[in-house]
Amino acid sequence: MYIPTLDDVLAGRERIDPYIHRTPVLTSRILNELTGAELFFKCENLQKAGAFKARGAANAVFGLSHEQAKKGVATHSSGNHGTCLSYAAGRRGIPCTVVMPRTAPQAKKDAVRGYGGRVVECEPSTSSREKVFAEVVGETGAEFVHPYNDHRVIAGQATCSAELIEQVESLDALVAPIGGGGMISGTCLALSHLAPQVKIYAAEPEQADDAYRSFRAGHIIADDAPDTVADGLKVPLKELTWHFVRNYVTDIQTASEQEIVDAMKLIWKRLKIVMEPSSAVPLATVLKNPEVFAGKRVGIIITGGNVDLEKLPWN
Amino acid sequence: MYIPTLDDVLAGRERIDPYIHRTPVLTSRILNELTGAELFFKCENLQKAGAFKARGAANAVFGLSHEQAKKGVATHSSGNHGTCLSYAAGRRGIPCTVVMPRTAPQAKKDAVRGYGGRVVECEPSTSSREKVFAEVVGETGAEFVHPYNDHRVIAGQATCSAELIEQVESLDALVAPIGGGGMISGTCLALSHLAPQVKIYAAEPEQADDAYRSFRAGHIIADDAPDTVADGLKVPLKELTWHFVRNYVTDIQTASEQEIVDAMKLIWKRLKIVMEPSSAVPLATVLKNPEVFAGKRVGIIITGGNVDLEKLPWN
Repeated sequence: MYIPTLDDVLAGRERIDPYIHRTPVLTSRILNELTGAELFFKCENLQKAGAFKARGAANAVFGLSHEQAKKGVATHSSGNHGTCLSYAAGRRGIPCTVVMPRTAPQAKKDAVRGYGGRVVECEPSTSSREKVFAEVVGETGAEFVHPYNDHRVIAGQATCSAELIEQVESLDALVAPIGGGGMISGTCLALSHLAPQVKIYAAEPEQADDAYRSFRAGHIIADDAPDTVADGLKVPLKELTWHFVRNYVTDIQTASEQEIVDAMKLIWKRLKIVMEPSSAVPLATVLKNPEVFAGKRVGIIITGGNVDLEKLPWN
Repeated sequence: MYIPTLDDVLAGRERIDPYIHRTPVLTSRILNELTGAELFFKCENLQKAGAFKARGAANAVFGLSHEQAKKGVATHSSGNHGTCLSYAAGRRGIPCTVVMPRTAPQAKKDAVRGYGGRVVECEPSTSSREKVFAEVVGETGAEFVHPYNDHRVIAGQATCSAELIEQVESLDALVAPIGGGGMISGTCLALSHLAPQVKIYAAEPEQADDAYRSFRAGHIIADDAPDTVADGLKVPLKELTWHFVRNYVTDIQTASEQEIVDAMKLIWKRLKIVMEPSSAVPLATVLKNPEVFAGKRVGIIITGGNVDLEKLPWN
């Protein structure tokens, strides 16, 4: 297992610079008063294709050799990674195939196609997904880019917190959501080298708390059918992300469904940004654990903004 | 009638700097492709108190003498100006009274109170509003800060486009919504001195097109009971704002209710920001007049983000 290094992050930053936004950092006096902390929201919902995953996807796509690039890339994802890989492949002008359950939301399929990617449907089961995906790779010779258990992807995600510490001085802590652990691993990778004094907290839904339980058990525990409004956070940790979580995360905190929706609405109302339920879990945990964050300068990663405007969780 | 000058803008910028955000400028490749123009969205929905009006209100409040400040400020507004004046007064620690029709949305009254201001209700008629407002000023000796027909307010709003031309080089045009004309007047004031080559367009709802008709008639025409989803744009021009509109605006363009709602949803979906229907009118007019804007670098002012998340116009 190759562990990405600071050099990978610095090379990735240069590589993806033309294809991603340097996203703004927002603050709110009212949210500071509510939490007793000084919060700095890194708005990756304003990132290309609407999610931080454009960083990792672009780093993987633009790092391919000319020969490999011609064969294109492939992944299985019904979430932002599929959209972002399609975006990055489109920018390089190479083929991208995303395997998705036929039951995935139409909007997600349209998003992949909107950036020029091809959607191949499978049955909503792991076995079907693996079978169909193997066929796709067999036919095309496409390079598999895993949503998070991939050193190129993690090095790409690391550019987000590398940027944040240039935008905000002397942070005490950083809180990011945790699903498969790609963003958290990138955060650990960047900060362990560039700002080791910053404590890293992961935020997870109670109803998909496999990382929380893994962290306490000391080994990976997978969830049994997690179900949460934060649908970006249902996937389990893998070897590479577990390496970073185990070694660099200070703590993992959880929030209930209601706490997540309340925090989401608070951010929409106060920061005036459109973001996903998954991105609200960090504020929910900060509100829930004032003793940990009060008086501190805390970075919060708003991971994505791809939400169905017709189906908001409070309507 | 005192016409504010560039010196007023520069002094205002220094005066309000500690109390406002330097708001970010967002771009979208997809919106550029849709319009054929290069669009730069100045996000005043991310401004303090959620609207550009925090600039003008802060300039008026922090420009008051110590003696006057002790007596506080007052205005009549059921919109963002009331909220923003309350915000600015709160920052200076002086009293603020906002006269509002008792029929105004509870959320607007709560917003004023949330920043420490006092709400005094009147009947929903001009005569009642003027009577009640005269009483308030009589009792308190508060300084009247008009929502837009006030040189201090216009000089404050001018700081928005002064900032924008520092953030984005060589703009060809700038489009802002027009209601009473405060933002447009500030834009004219700043750009006529700092970037006279930038053409200024005003965007107005068809169903509240008094500025459009005034511009063509050559004199102020008031609307007869305007009704539009862009509720921030129902108010008429006044002498001071008419001065700037008449002398510096290149054209005024209008959009239908459906075009406004479509543009609003497009911005929410693509820029991932929460903003008001009023703020969507400029994009609606840019989409409607490609021959005017195609190939140009166009600044668009997103004026505010205070919208009822439970009552979105597409739900």
